[in-house]
Amino acid sequence: MSDRDLHAPLIGVSGSRGALNTPVLVLDRDTLDANIAAMAAFARGAGVALRPHAKTHKSADIAKLQIAAGAAGVCCAKLGEAEALAERGVDDILITSPVVTSQAITRLIALHARIANLAIVADHPKNVAALAAAANSNRPLRVLVDIDPGIRRTGVSSPAAALDLARQIADAPSLRFSGVQFYCGMQQHIEGYADRRAALEERTAYLQSIVALLRDNGLAPPVVTGGGTGTHRIDAALGVLTELQVGSYVFMDRQYLDCALAEEGPSPFAPSLFVEAHIISANAQGMATIDAGFKALAADGGPPRIAAGAPDGAKFVFMGDEHGAVIAPDGVFALGATVRLVTPHCDPTVNLYDAYHVVRGETLIDIWPVDARGRSR
Amino acid sequence: MSDRDLHAPLIGVSGSRGALNTPVLVLDRDTLDANIAAMAAFARGAGVALRPHAKTHKSADIAKLQIAAGAAGVCCAKLGEAEALAERGVDDILITSPVVTSQAITRLIALHARIANLAIVADHPKNVAALAAAANSNRPLRVLVDIDPGIRRTGVSSPAAALDLARQIADAPSLRFSGVQFYCGMQQHIEGYADRRAALEERTAYLQSIVALLRDNGLAPPVVTGGGTGTHRIDAALGVLTELQVGSYVFMDRQYLDCALAEEGPSPFAPSLFVEAHIISANAQGMATIDAGFKALAADGGPPRIAAGAPDGAKFVFMGDEHGAVIAPDGVFALGATVRLVTPHCDPTVNLYDAYHVVRGETLIDIWPVDARGRSR
Repeated sequence: MSDRDLHAPLIGVSGSRGALNTPVLVLDRDTLDANIAAMAAFARGAGVALRPHAKTHKSADIAKLQIAAGAAGVCCAKLGEAEALAERGVDDILITSPVVTSQAITRLIALHARIANLAIVADHPKNVAALAAAANSNRPLRVLVDIDPGIRRTGVSSPAAALDLARQIADAPSLRFSGVQFYCGMQQHIEGYADRRAALEERTAYLQSIVALLRDNGLAPPVVTGGGTGTHRIDAALGVLTELQVGSYVFMDRQYLDCALAEEGPSPFAPSLFVEAHIISANAQGMATIDAGFKALAADGGPPRIAAGAPDGAKFVFMGDEHGAVIAPDGVFALGATVRLVTPHCDPTVNLYDAYHVVRGETLIDIWPVDARGRSR
Repeated sequence: MSDRDLHAPLIGVSGSRGALNTPVLVLDRDTLDANIAAMAAFARGAGVALRPHAKTHKSADIAKLQIAAGAAGVCCAKLGEAEALAERGVDDILITSPVVTSQAITRLIALHARIANLAIVADHPKNVAALAAAANSNRPLRVLVDIDPGIRRTGVSSPAAALDLARQIADAPSLRFSGVQFYCGMQQHIEGYADRRAALEERTAYLQSIVALLRDNGLAPPVVTGGGTGTHRIDAALGVLTELQVGSYVFMDRQYLDCALAEEGPSPFAPSLFVEAHIISANAQGMATIDAGFKALAADGGPPRIAAGAPDGAKFVFMGDEHGAVIAPDGVFALGATVRLVTPHCDPTVNLYDAYHVVRGETLIDIWPVDARGRSR
């Protein structure tokens, strides 16, 4: 039985949030809307385009809200994610990882034929040659040069390699050189704002040198895309990126709540996403067991933050695949009580669920599919 | 596009394993069959019943193979998992975690009406009272007392509490006292066999004292269920468990490959489950990036083991949600090459995928759904 079949009868029923079967992924609509509006207003004010990263939410419903608020389109991490969102009408997508195998390039070209605006990144001459051979000069494929900011994950590793690759793309009739990508993944979660800014300034000077080299060679990049929730203000102030790939701001998670997102004052974004669970065992003193473990909360980001349902200061400890412990030495826990958690790392946690249970206050108002759940290929 | 739609044309095509879009979950049919046969033979020889844990595979196809090889039925960790397997004809299920909320108990009773043999564990008098009120004395629900072996996850925490709960179950006309569960989760992964046996001997003496107390009070447990892949030989030798809940032996994973599963000699089980990925970036010396990260491999169990596609001694390092690095200082990596990984922890990794791509050698022979993927509720 799907989440929709199970829970659709609760839509619109006052107080129905508490009657959901758990573990369940719950999305607070008002906070989601406020987060989307706040980032859209920031980007407008800063004069930078917004291309939110859909790898966070994998949802056509949320992508459409972001685009309606002014985003140019979305990013997808993987081709399968882009296919899933395109199936539901999202038609302006940048795929932010190289697509290299012949079977995947065949799918990429088929997707390119189906939607209004598709772009892809590349970081290797062999890949550009394969893309050029597969694409059609009647409908050139937009390709951006991915630049490694020092992660050694993807991207060209020198200014000279960036220039060579840009020239190869520009010279291919079936491709169109559309800019560069520079994603400082390692800097996003530096907790202090000033430390994060210092790291970004140094990296952005490197990016700036590549942009200048390309410009001097007649290959000025139309788009310079990158950034994330952790660095969006710094990136906008530094003024080299033309487009921000922010993702997690829509939901916020424990990792980003641990970071100062503004230079001073409170974060402009609040947690909209929760995993809700129930206490299913309460026999040990000062602790209780809930029905959410590694299959309900991605473990790469550490433990979730407890938002409600346990005494202040209570801590979560993973207890295996299916369970977690809520620990508060003086706490008294009731069998069947609800515990509300802020996800530790939102992206891979969302990928565990088929649906968002959208709430307003304590009432379920809608169920949205996680369209690209599992579509890592 | 589902995994089946995408890859069904490759079924039966010689060499098609290499043409799969990745990351992909691949199951070696011959090794799977050998693992199932080896455990079935072991249990027959030891005179103990087998009730494999389906939380590992979440697959009706695999459950049916286990039952065909002699298993009494399967375990499920969660009600949603049991519902999903029951929908595909698995009709003898023990649910190994308490089901406590009213909405879940309603579903439990509905499932009980639909399948031949359903049993549930309980660890609290309030939960037993709720089950008794919901169940029907015309078709009593089988309930086992869950005993905490010291994990403080689920289970009653003393022999006296076990006796009280068994009596409460036996006294309820709508319930049937069906035994006890004792799952030594913490002991499964002790790497040395002798250390593991010593830990189990001590815990089994505790279990034995509870079984004796119940027997002395006219409540001899018909079933004493527990154990796992790490302890099955020790449990069988100690002779208190009547039924083994082994799960991971069907697949094996890096965690269990790190354990000695037999007192001496090689493990009777071999890895049948792989995540296969492609190299999508190869610009940095001595390393390459593959298309499998936290969304393709559960991170709670550490890194996967590299089985093929990289030099001996190469190591995997997670590189975020979508990527991993294969590191070998003297290695030369080719863009687009396949890397084969043994999952770090099989259960939560399987839960990331919609389907098993079943292979024989290098040929895709079938695609099986992960029926209970995401059904943690």
